[in-house]
Amino acid sequence: MLPRVTTVADLSTPALVVDTDALARNLDTMSAALPGARLRPHVKAHKCTALAREQARRGHTHFTAATPREIVGLARAGLGDDLLLANETVDAGRLRALADCEALVTVAVDSDATVDAAAANGIRAVLIDVNVYLPRCGCAPEDAPRLADRARSAGMEVRGVMGYEGHAVLIADRAERTAKTTQSMERLARVAETVGGEIVSAGGTGTYDLNAAATEIQAGSYALMDGDYGKLGLPFRRALAIVATVIHANERWSVADCGLKAMGMDHGNPMIDDADVLFCSDEHLTFTPHGRARVGDRILVWPAHVDPTVAYHERMQLADGPGVGAQVVDSWAVDLRGWDVPANKTSTPRASTRRGK
Amino acid sequence: MLPRVTTVADLSTPALVVDTDALARNLDTMSAALPGARLRPHVKAHKCTALAREQARRGHTHFTAATPREIVGLARAGLGDDLLLANETVDAGRLRALADCEALVTVAVDSDATVDAAAANGIRAVLIDVNVYLPRCGCAPEDAPRLADRARSAGMEVRGVMGYEGHAVLIADRAERTAKTTQSMERLARVAETVGGEIVSAGGTGTYDLNAAATEIQAGSYALMDGDYGKLGLPFRRALAIVATVIHANERWSVADCGLKAMGMDHGNPMIDDADVLFCSDEHLTFTPHGRARVGDRILVWPAHVDPTVAYHERMQLADGPGVGAQVVDSWAVDLRGWDVPANKTSTPRASTRRGK
Repeated sequence: MLPRVTTVADLSTPALVVDTDALARNLDTMSAALPGARLRPHVKAHKCTALAREQARRGHTHFTAATPREIVGLARAGLGDDLLLANETVDAGRLRALADCEALVTVAVDSDATVDAAAANGIRAVLIDVNVYLPRCGCAPEDAPRLADRARSAGMEVRGVMGYEGHAVLIADRAERTAKTTQSMERLARVAETVGGEIVSAGGTGTYDLNAAATEIQAGSYALMDGDYGKLGLPFRRALAIVATVIHANERWSVADCGLKAMGMDHGNPMIDDADVLFCSDEHLTFTPHGRARVGDRILVWPAHVDPTVAYHERMQLADGPGVGAQVVDSWAVDLRGWDVPANKTSTPRASTRRGK
Repeated sequence: MLPRVTTVADLSTPALVVDTDALARNLDTMSAALPGARLRPHVKAHKCTALAREQARRGHTHFTAATPREIVGLARAGLGDDLLLANETVDAGRLRALADCEALVTVAVDSDATVDAAAANGIRAVLIDVNVYLPRCGCAPEDAPRLADRARSAGMEVRGVMGYEGHAVLIADRAERTAKTTQSMERLARVAETVGGEIVSAGGTGTYDLNAAATEIQAGSYALMDGDYGKLGLPFRRALAIVATVIHANERWSVADCGLKAMGMDHGNPMIDDADVLFCSDEHLTFTPHGRARVGDRILVWPAHVDPTVAYHERMQLADGPGVGAQVVDSWAVDLRGWDVPANKTSTPRASTRRGK
């Protein structure tokens, strides 16, 4: 029998740990700034229906997703009031799965091919995705009205436009971030006039309070935060860490059991308080503590980028505060990860399992 | 009803695809160089018992693992002849799970704390892990005999030593790679004399043919390969790609549905044949094809680092050759990922499900 887990330090490692105080404050802070449908939380950052339910409880019942699997999972969790796939797909099977959801599902389209695939597979509502200077998806502004007509001719409702100013969201200088966002949103607003519909969907955590043109903001990282967004001086606190165990310690360096398979590394190394991170291996993190670490010590590792970090983990553990001494009070499944849309017949998995039951 | 998948281009994306011809050649090439127990394949690179079974079929029935979950999964798959946890842990529950395996399990130790934890939780055999100049785990050479005595006094067999020359395995210049490896192995051989036992375990894909001192080589990446190892001129071919779908194409760039949650990024961007990769987002890859891409095209994305790439995926699909036109002939579960050791009572999951059944 394993001992009953009571504190973060008792968890087997590596494990995702959420500081529920910080999470609640982040959710409340955002809800005060962008109440109700002004925020369309993006679930790609946390991939967790239990966390989405906390956002819905605060009045944000419209969600943004990056994959059909996220949409289907939200719908099955009873969170299907108004779901936006803010991404393009031409996968017929997955589009049909979206069309079959007991939910209002809207899909982003930016080309003839994506409009036609949506229409052919039963999608009933779209947004025209417009390029707003990030070199990724989104049609050219002059193409938008034609695509909207094409969608309407195919029997779909065009609810409006979206455009993601992803090149702006992490700019450290607030004035420059604002300028880039304004430039992007001026384009999006012009296109919205030509497309029609009510929705102008855009934005992210880095631009949530300076994107005035969008009718709704697609922020997601604000809930858990990460090292990169932490540099912007936003009113959101880091709420997600990986608890790790020191497995080696000598006078020059120490090693914890948290590596490349526990953290997204595209934004570089994670941070450890009172220590310098030297490098990460598959299952190791070599660091130099400012004090002396001992084998068996628990440390918290703060990932640089939340989204690809969460996607490595099956669950996140909830603690009643910061630090490794906090009590573990709940455990949430990261139930939206992967890409395969679960078969229709399977029962809805329970997202939250309170410990001790 | 989804159509029956027949070719790589029919797969929903992103999906891991293994070229079975390249895989078989890689496995055969390594088996010719290091037959039988001269190779102790490291499963951390593929995390797949079905692939491990292919290695065992070629005579390599002793395996290396980085996590207790990998060890327990191998044992339950009937691959427990001789399993080495080439990593330190002080997790009592997981050590007991290793001790309870129906398998010969040997654990790496490098400190009083790791020796004591192994002994206290029923581990019967250890290797003394020696630092060979990579700043990670491994005891100081002068500590090794004392740790071996401590392990023996606690009733454990000391089967020998291990040491990983991880700082050498990716050095592009072969002469320099050889020199660093030789330096590391001279240290390890000296320590082996003071420790006793039969085993000197070391090495990786980059040093498999120039590490003459080790009695067994812990190579893993050679089976599937990746962009980084591909630069070394080794006789192993790239066998693992991610098939992705082009979801946006314009005259200046294209976008595929394969991003940061489908690939380890610690070694940088992946590669696409006949294209330049610009940047990766969570679920997007922006690239410039040398020709013109069209929405719906399938492309193969070659990851820079295999280990953290595989760990993002639930399955790998097996194709009977290279390219998106190859037939999909099988599907293997990536069944060793994550860290939680599955509960004792669950039945062994089937690792391989032939399509069409």
